[in-house]
Amino acid sequence: MNTNNIQIDSQGKLRHLLKIDGLSRSHLTQILDIADQYIAYNQHKYSALDSLKNYTSVNLLFENSTRTRVSFELAAKRLGVEVINFDLSTSSIQKGETMLDTIHTLQAMHCNFFVIRHSENNIVEFIAQNVNHEVAVINAGDGTHAHPSQALLDMLTIRQHKKSFEHLKVAIVGDIRHSRVAHSAITALPILGCKDIRIIGPDFLLPESKITGVEMFRDMKKGLEDVDVIMMLRIQKERIKNTSLPDIQEYYENYGLTPKKLKLAKPDAIVMHPGPMNRGIEIDSSIADGPQSVILQQVSNGVAVRMAIFSVLAETLAL
Amino acid sequence: MNTNNIQIDSQGKLRHLLKIDGLSRSHLTQILDIADQYIAYNQHKYSALDSLKNYTSVNLLFENSTRTRVSFELAAKRLGVEVINFDLSTSSIQKGETMLDTIHTLQAMHCNFFVIRHSENNIVEFIAQNVNHEVAVINAGDGTHAHPSQALLDMLTIRQHKKSFEHLKVAIVGDIRHSRVAHSAITALPILGCKDIRIIGPDFLLPESKITGVEMFRDMKKGLEDVDVIMMLRIQKERIKNTSLPDIQEYYENYGLTPKKLKLAKPDAIVMHPGPMNRGIEIDSSIADGPQSVILQQVSNGVAVRMAIFSVLAETLAL
Amino acid sequence: MNTNNIQIDSQGKLRHLLKIDGLSRSHLTQILDIADQYIAYNQHKYSALDSLKNYTSVNLLFENSTRTRVSFELAAKRLGVEVINFDLSTSSIQKGETMLDTIHTLQAMHCNFFVIRHSENNIVEFIAQNVNHEVAVINAGDGTHAHPSQALLDMLTIRQHKKSFEHLKVAIVGDIRHSRVAHSAITALPILGCKDIRIIGPDFLLPESKITGVEMFRDMKKGLEDVDVIMMLRIQKERIKNTSLPDIQEYYENYGLTPKKLKLAKPDAIVMHPGPMNRGIEIDSSIADGPQSVILQQVSNGVAVRMAIFSVLAETLAL
Repeated sequence: MNTNNIQIDSQGKLRHLLKIDGLSRSHLTQILDIADQYIAYNQHKYSALDSLKNYTSVNLLFENSTRTRVSFELAAKRLGVEVINFDLSTSSIQKGETMLDTIHTLQAMHCNFFVIRHSENNIVEFIAQNVNHEVAVINAGDGTHAHPSQALLDMLTIRQHKKSFEHLKVAIVGDIRHSRVAHSAITALPILGCKDIRIIGPDFLLPESKITGVEMFRDMKKGLEDVDVIMMLRIQKERIKNTSLPDIQEYYENYGLTPKKLKLAKPDAIVMHPGPMNRGIEIDSSIADGPQSVILQQVSNGVAVRMAIFSVLAETLAL
Repeated sequence: MNTNNIQIDSQGKLRHLLKIDGLSRSHLTQILDIADQYIAYNQHKYSALDSLKNYTSVNLLFENSTRTRVSFELAAKRLGVEVINFDLSTSSIQKGETMLDTIHTLQAMHCNFFVIRHSENNIVEFIAQNVNHEVAVINAGDGTHAHPSQALLDMLTIRQHKKSFEHLKVAIVGDIRHSRVAHSAITALPILGCKDIRIIGPDFLLPESKITGVEMFRDMKKGLEDVDVIMMLRIQKERIKNTSLPDIQEYYENYGLTPKKLKLAKPDAIVMHPGPMNRGIEIDSSIADGPQSVILQQVSNGVAVRMAIFSVLAETLAL
Repeated sequence: MNTNNIQIDSQGKLRHLLKIDGLSRSHLTQILDIADQYIAYNQHKYSALDSLKNYTSVNLLFENSTRTRVSFELAAKRLGVEVINFDLSTSSIQKGETMLDTIHTLQAMHCNFFVIRHSENNIVEFIAQNVNHEVAVINAGDGTHAHPSQALLDMLTIRQHKKSFEHLKVAIVGDIRHSRVAHSAITALPILGCKDIRIIGPDFLLPESKITGVEMFRDMKKGLEDVDVIMMLRIQKERIKNTSLPDIQEYYENYGLTPKKLKLAKPDAIVMHPGPMNRGIEIDSSIADGPQSVILQQVSNGVAVRMAIFSVLAETLAL
């Protein structure tokens, strides 16, 4: 099954947004360029755009995520899209309805965007394979697999601070193995030209096999040397407890971003985090709130990028 | 208490939609005709109608139903109606407030449509008796009593496929006794001219007393003979287990709609189901997804019918 | 820490609405005058005002309150404000994110109004101290501390019925000690000129220390004598049970508003209650539904007052 074909239509246009894999540089930069325009609307008193007034978006969150849901909901509403929140914990799926029946029901109601978050990998692609020409599927995070809108907002944020991706050194730190954020970023960066990607973490949180073009570091101090961008990942405390690592304090000492470790990076390095943060575990509060942090800018960019995603996908829908 | 008077105003216009009983053919066809127009809007890129922009609808779901809630919410929003979702499980009713105080509070906030689903019969009528001229009550399903918007979307779907109701043979199969969908359909069909209605099911799921003008069948094969329309009902698995019927497999063999049984109906018979479906229990998957199924069309019609209900009721509100 | 400075900007304009303390009479009457205009819109078929179309409001309810949430949501939507409901019980805060990180995230998404209800005192002020020039914070009730929008709608209701606040006698009855409604009303009334405020309740529900300008009564019959306004408070049944008071029936006899006790007030006295009511405990049903009750008018006024609050605060935001 070639799932790339699902994302791209016969004219090469984006049809769904399921993952970064298989997208071209122009797919990515198209979204980033449109997002740039929307940022102006969001920063200033944006006038209602209403450009997608006839569209409906459904938030289908099988996995709890208020932060991402609100970002997509705001992005949709600021384009005039009607938004329906579909609480899966109280839905007909409980009554034994199959997921495809639920999807086809929403499709029959002429909903156009399905924003889906799911704890399992590949469910979102399965859904995309089963919708008609009126529906675009947007992966809002599935399992440990992909989180493409997060990758796009991360790329937008980097592009705002760094002249080019070509000579950029990017370090991603933490639980790489289970992170869809890391996976999506590692895929997006080379597409945009980045050639120096480092992933940093303890053995049990690094990928089980080598990733082409990505260097692995167990020693954070070595990995951070001279980098332009540091992407910190959220660590799940439960994961640390169930391993040989003695405790959270040791994790912080080895892999938390402290002022001392930050000094190893370039002086103008930016610090990113997808949120929500565990302050004092993977990142020191003084850095989270410090001058090199672009964490809240990532949040702002998230709304603009999602507006751009809706706009781009709307073009390929046949309504 | 003549509850028909509650639904119809002194000029014979629809004032609330509580049940099909007591409505005339012209009440039904008025809604169906308006719904026909809205289908065009929904199928194509509907432009925002905004015809009810000054109205507010409250979804008051005392009983969980995402599917019906979303259909009413979309219908309202596509007419420009503001929608408030009122989660009864977390509401003041828990704090000991009476239901009437909740209703009067929402009325004082100038909400115009109360879309109510309740597990008990007749609560919706009780509420309709206690609202003022600014509020129309819509029954979105109460107990085993009525589900009038479902009956209307079913009638619309039949009308789209069959020239007339006059010579139509309609079979309704399954748990007739506890089904508000069945009850509402059995009432609506004769109003529109249908003279041949058959209900099919095991003894313990058929009505306890005979319904005038409706023929009962325990043998599905006899009941389906030569029919134009088959309406399958959702079976609640719990109900089967607590009876003499050995198991679900036996129910499927006797009362599930299989390709073999479907052949007993007319070749152009349509198959309906209100959803959510139990595939492999009351209906075979090949039929649910087959060429005679109009199940997803029912869903689409649901939005249009509910738009029509809002429009018709808005005319009799005194704002 | 001078929290008054937080509410008022350097030009003396309302910047946040955190509590009544520290506001001037002109602050209050400005809101009441604007609310008066909105009442006309709400009573009649209000045309979409859309005057705040570029704004976004977030309902951040850390404490459950459907009634207040719906009132704020309707007020916002009737001005064209986009509304996001943020369910704190399922939010990232559960994942260990700090409250400030949540607030800053919503701010980075360019949300403009934070409507906050919290079970703890002073959290709302803490949040107001930590937002930027794009955000206004509205206290929708915090702990036993303040509920300023409730006080404003109460004042609006009194003003609609009584010529002036100057010679008004107002009795507040019930659980004064734990009531943010009582606290806010006791603060607002003198600002508008009221000089005769009485609080009535059993010892364990009266304030622990005297309030300047407020007379305390243990005997409801003495306290109600000749008053123009009676504000009944909601009693929490749990609170009665854990005290020396034998039971709810005794509370009703001593501090419930009965027809007999109501006769002690002026013949044109109005009866108020913030809702939800415990009928038969703090108030007799015949009074709640009787000619002197203005309880549902308070609800209607609530929407108009909240529209006015949004309008006034929007003026001081720098977008």
